[in-house]
Amino acid sequence: MKRILPAILIVLPLVVVSVFAGASSPKKGPLSEETKACLECHRTISPGIFRDWEKGRHAWMTPAEGLKVGKVGRRISSETIPGHLKGTVVGCAECHTLNPDKHKDTFEHNGYKVHTVVTPADCAVCHSKETQQFGQNIMSRAYGNLKSNPLYSGLADLINGLKTYRDNGLVHLPADPTTNADSCYHCHGTLIEVKGKQTRETDMGTMDFPILTGWPNQGVGRVNPDGSLGSCAACHTRHSFSLEMARKPHTCSQCHKGPDVPAAKVYSVSKHGNIFSALGKEWNYKNVPWKVGKDFTAPTCAVCHVSQLVNDEGEVIVERTHRMNDRLSWRLFGLIYAHPHPKSADTSLIRNKSGQPLPTDLSGEPATAFLIDQKEQDKRRQTMGKVCLSCHSQNWVKGHFQRLDHTIKTTNQLTLTATQLMQVAWEKGSAKGPAQKDSPFNEPLEKKWVEQWLFYANSTRYASAMMGADYGVFANGRWYLNKNIEEMAERLKQPVR
Amino acid sequence: MKRILPAILIVLPLVVVSVFAGASSPKKGPLSEETKACLECHRTISPGIFRDWEKGRHAWMTPAEGLKVGKVGRRISSETIPGHLKGTVVGCAECHTLNPDKHKDTFEHNGYKVHTVVTPADCAVCHSKETQQFGQNIMSRAYGNLKSNPLYSGLADLINGLKTYRDNGLVHLPADPTTNADSCYHCHGTLIEVKGKQTRETDMGTMDFPILTGWPNQGVGRVNPDGSLGSCAACHTRHSFSLEMARKPHTCSQCHKGPDVPAAKVYSVSKHGNIFSALGKEWNYKNVPWKVGKDFTAPTCAVCHVSQLVNDEGEVIVERTHRMNDRLSWRLFGLIYAHPHPKSADTSLIRNKSGQPLPTDLSGEPATAFLIDQKEQDKRRQTMGKVCLSCHSQNWVKGHFQRLDHTIKTTNQLTLTATQLMQVAWEKGSAKGPAQKDSPFNEPLEKKWVEQWLFYANSTRYASAMMGADYGVFANGRWYLNKNIEEMAERLKQPVR
Amino acid sequence: MKRILPAILIVLPLVVVSVFAGASSPKKGPLSEETKACLECHRTISPGIFRDWEKGRHAWMTPAEGLKVGKVGRRISSETIPGHLKGTVVGCAECHTLNPDKHKDTFEHNGYKVHTVVTPADCAVCHSKETQQFGQNIMSRAYGNLKSNPLYSGLADLINGLKTYRDNGLVHLPADPTTNADSCYHCHGTLIEVKGKQTRETDMGTMDFPILTGWPNQGVGRVNPDGSLGSCAACHTRHSFSLEMARKPHTCSQCHKGPDVPAAKVYSVSKHGNIFSALGKEWNYKNVPWKVGKDFTAPTCAVCHVSQLVNDEGEVIVERTHRMNDRLSWRLFGLIYAHPHPKSADTSLIRNKSGQPLPTDLSGEPATAFLIDQKEQDKRRQTMGKVCLSCHSQNWVKGHFQRLDHTIKTTNQLTLTATQLMQVAWEKGSAKGPAQKDSPFNEPLEKKWVEQWLFYANSTRYASAMMGADYGVFANGRWYLNKNIEEMAERLKQPVR
Repeated sequence: MKRILPAILIVLPLVVVSVFAGASSPKKGPLSEETKACLECHRTISPGIFRDWEKGRHAWMTPAEGLKVGKVGRRISSETIPGHLKGTVVGCAECHTLNPDKHKDTFEHNGYKVHTVVTPADCAVCHSKETQQFGQNIMSRAYGNLKSNPLYSGLADLINGLKTYRDNGLVHLPADPTTNADSCYHCHGTLIEVKGKQTRETDMGTMDFPILTGWPNQGVGRVNPDGSLGSCAACHTRHSFSLEMARKPHTCSQCHKGPDVPAAKVYSVSKHGNIFSALGKEWNYKNVPWKVGKDFTAPTCAVCHVSQLVNDEGEVIVERTHRMNDRLSWRLFGLIYAHPHPKSADTSLIRNKSGQPLPTDLSGEPATAFLIDQKEQDKRRQTMGKVCLSCHSQNWVKGHFQRLDHTIKTTNQLTLTATQLMQVAWEKGSAKGPAQKDSPFNEPLEKKWVEQWLFYANSTRYASAMMGADYGVFANGRWYLNKNIEEMAERLKQPVR
Repeated sequence: MKRILPAILIVLPLVVVSVFAGASSPKKGPLSEETKACLECHRTISPGIFRDWEKGRHAWMTPAEGLKVGKVGRRISSETIPGHLKGTVVGCAECHTLNPDKHKDTFEHNGYKVHTVVTPADCAVCHSKETQQFGQNIMSRAYGNLKSNPLYSGLADLINGLKTYRDNGLVHLPADPTTNADSCYHCHGTLIEVKGKQTRETDMGTMDFPILTGWPNQGVGRVNPDGSLGSCAACHTRHSFSLEMARKPHTCSQCHKGPDVPAAKVYSVSKHGNIFSALGKEWNYKNVPWKVGKDFTAPTCAVCHVSQLVNDEGEVIVERTHRMNDRLSWRLFGLIYAHPHPKSADTSLIRNKSGQPLPTDLSGEPATAFLIDQKEQDKRRQTMGKVCLSCHSQNWVKGHFQRLDHTIKTTNQLTLTATQLMQVAWEKGSAKGPAQKDSPFNEPLEKKWVEQWLFYANSTRYASAMMGADYGVFANGRWYLNKNIEEMAERLKQPVR
Repeated sequence: MKRILPAILIVLPLVVVSVFAGASSPKKGPLSEETKACLECHRTISPGIFRDWEKGRHAWMTPAEGLKVGKVGRRISSETIPGHLKGTVVGCAECHTLNPDKHKDTFEHNGYKVHTVVTPADCAVCHSKETQQFGQNIMSRAYGNLKSNPLYSGLADLINGLKTYRDNGLVHLPADPTTNADSCYHCHGTLIEVKGKQTRETDMGTMDFPILTGWPNQGVGRVNPDGSLGSCAACHTRHSFSLEMARKPHTCSQCHKGPDVPAAKVYSVSKHGNIFSALGKEWNYKNVPWKVGKDFTAPTCAVCHVSQLVNDEGEVIVERTHRMNDRLSWRLFGLIYAHPHPKSADTSLIRNKSGQPLPTDLSGEPATAFLIDQKEQDKRRQTMGKVCLSCHSQNWVKGHFQRLDHTIKTTNQLTLTATQLMQVAWEKGSAKGPAQKDSPFNEPLEKKWVEQWLFYANSTRYASAMMGADYGVFANGRWYLNKNIEEMAERLKQPVR
């Protein structure tokens, strides 16, 4: 007995440590020869990338193993995986040397054909369903939807361009690509093109690399050298591709915190956000399927908008979707009014009754032909409702959405009033508008009008939709919605100069 | 020996896992027959509610057990609990079927008399002392204090109402109850009344439910169908009622983050907030009593304003209070000046010297009869001081409060100056004020005046009180306090239109 | 066998608990007699301080033990430690009674010569290298750099002073020291001087204490009673001096969150900030040396700007520095333009070509003699680049910095345009400027000009440097940079009053 206990005392801590260190000491899986070659240098040169990748599932689970998981818990949505990729884990080479001919940024690198920019087309090998859904996601077109819309890109140009002072007046210089990439297109995604080659001295000798425009970028609507659209890494951060991270609200807040789309700010003052912040540390963000109540007790962004959810019995409550508006009947983001979601992810196709590339007329009339109909709106609301009902009664959910619908109506009205004031200003000559062949966005009064719908109406609607009222009153909402209109009206009374 | 060690290796991980999984695999306690009946369906229909409740103490500890805990650690403040509630845990039925006759929202539900809206009167069965204190808390009257004060509700109406454009001018339409509920009254609380009955198809067949106005809502000053005031769930989030959550600052930030009461923003740049954010993950938020230094090393909101605190020897430093201003000598929230706290939670009773429903005159003179006196102010500061002294020297604490008092004085002066400018504007006709039977809040210049006291003076005082100076300079404080006055003065020089 | 297993089951949980409770149940080390005397009372009087200190390394590791640690992992940078301090842990007396004659705030306290304000000169006993670097850190001079620069202190005075209304106009009253200490100098640091003695009744009887000006304060550039500059406690929070806290971004956000230096806000919407917020809970913030990839997978503020980093092999990637701009080629903080970093930490010495105490002329021309040259700029960028390259390719890093350099150029241009408008205003008499012997900062138009460079240009540059574009567009960046210029131009068209 005396000899046994000391032995236990030595063994025990080891066991304990090995159990709990499990999370951080990564598991191992079979590497391809190509990935081994990559790691030979990059393990040392890029320790941050290597260790990050090592922590992710890609580093230890082969696609073959992934395919064995039962349907509802499976992370691979492709039915089949090419044979040569099945038996090794997903390492450097598996993504960065895939289909080299399709990638215009492919270059010779130590005997391998490597491309820098991994794209949704690469991810689709294993995650075909998500990629396909993402292709229908308005976000995947974020580059073109901004760039190819003359009104929106005109607004962006006024934001990103320069103003110089000359001859007693301001001169506007158009925005250059570098500034665009540092501003709107950081989130929207840049156009990545190969513009020649450069030779560089490296720690491993002289090497050639492609010169890429718009690089670096991981915007959600990036236009890739292989012609594909988007970047999965916008949300699924390289190189661990942690599900936990994608499911936490910080990921979305990278692009959805500003006054135009203040989802993160609203969430932070909502009851849901409070629960997440206070107790979320104890939740499980890794389980697939993701079980309401057991794995988490309040929604993150992903819960309501993206994730597959199951109930206590493992029955699916809602299906996973990467077409982010599948559960949204309204597009709260006013352009210039909140409106039913566009049918196509390519919103540059939309024309309103007046022929403008806007989903509504300046009067608020929706461009119906391009937007989902009432039936589809109802269906999407019902899908979202299923998420709500996991924790709320029918009465609660109904009451909530009635309130949101009302807020959409009133904020649209407050946008209309501001627009009417703006139209008077254009008529009276207090500002120069489209009729005078001038931008509707470049004068101080016009900027107040933009803030009315882009900042204050949007903020108020987000605050309503996500129950973060504190943001929707004095922080950036109704106080300003009303004050701004009064200031516009006051300015209109000033004599025309 | 060989046969023993392998056995240990099997048993060990189990022990370890069971010790550490304790937090998430809930304990069990005896359920009432009624609660069992509820759970029969709702366990499946409402997995989020069920699992959340299951994680809380209510789900496994009976009131009888709770009463056995020694005074300083007891969570039940009622001396006695009705016999039929003592022996089972606090489940669905214990709260939702309590005193059915008093609740006007009681309805027949599968043979039970259930009410939707659980109220402070329900919670008072076990938590009588907290409920009684909360009744004296100005927050419990947040609905009436806003609604019944013509000046405040007039301001709210201007924020929540609509503006339409007609006949070359703006027309103000009064705020409707739905918008109010989505805005100010989300935090202040709504008036919940029963307006008939609705019949609905459910998964369990056709059922009747009451129709409630102002629902959903969990505002701190909600007016309940049983006539009681407030909602404990505003801070003690349903259905786990986690003490940890109530003690963390995210709970308070639901309603105290906007520029009018920016406590959460100030905290986030304070040394206290930094310590919490960086190291708070290792603190104990569940212990009762709560031990300074041992359980936590910097204050959250609850530490300074609510919680019972004990020192290393277990001696009480400050008593728990749910009358939130027990430790506050000044009300920093300027209406329009910072002032000694009101005596009564019902602030709609207050009249200043000029007969206005304000705690101070427009000149800054306090409505003394309705406010606590110097002696009470000193007593409250001394109570707060005891909290500070756990970590700071007498010198430090004295210096801090001298600085705060000075900032109250100077920000009140900057409110006075803005008010004097406003009064000149009303006299000169640059704006229409009370003398012209017009709202003092509806014109652009008047809105600047409102921002002076409601946003900038308040923000500066909060930054001082909670030592978050970064917020009080350029973020939303002194820079604007001074700039705003200069802009008001400049506007006054413009010709009257 | 039967008798052994139960014994194991008793021992096991104890072992487990003791392993895991290790973090919170502090280790012990030998205390000096003096510190024991302090603790006799203060353990009870100041439980928060006592317990906080007890959690830190100072409380259990003696300098003698600290010196034994190998170079790269050593936390003590002094080569030798005075003999009498070597063998006991760093307790109350070790810091608060050190070199009593040098501290003007030393007072007799129960037979000991104690000083309240522990200073960098005290910390230098063990941490000489860090203290010496910090002395070259521009932050250590934050008091004088503001106070002794007539332009900057004039701006501060306009922010912190009072405005009263008299004879139909505003009267500016200069800022008093108490307001200054509650505002700018909270972060910049106050001047702490001894102004006499006070006698006070305490729980331990009548005692004398020094009266200190500017107390409490822990600003980074505090002027201490021993003549030293700065406060280590600004970042290394008393009394646990947790490395984890200093390495987390919340520490920096105490002073770097406002619109003038919005590092914390930008970080929160950057990919780096997202990774930290989502996964940082699993990182190791305590290891010295700090290993990229293994200890953390994305940078906090300290990673890029302060900490010593090592790679997987333990080789140093960058050296630790407390001269915070060692890795920064540009000072993004525009005064009024972004410029190469000043050579000396004492920026009050700087004079531009026009003789103004500014690092650039109003035309943008840098005061070259006082700023680092291109070679030093290149060197600093290369140092920062080494941090980036741990996780990013050469191409990525190069692309990133090209973009930042471009943004520095364009935001400087937008500051120039605003400055030209301002100069026109001064010439035309729309505002009174330096030529009229008036402050360039006290009129509404001038305040718009200040916001152009202090808020919007700075914010845009921070958003670029730290890849938090969402903050740099609509939150506080380019939208306002352009709008503000247009509003300034519009105002200039108004008739001069």
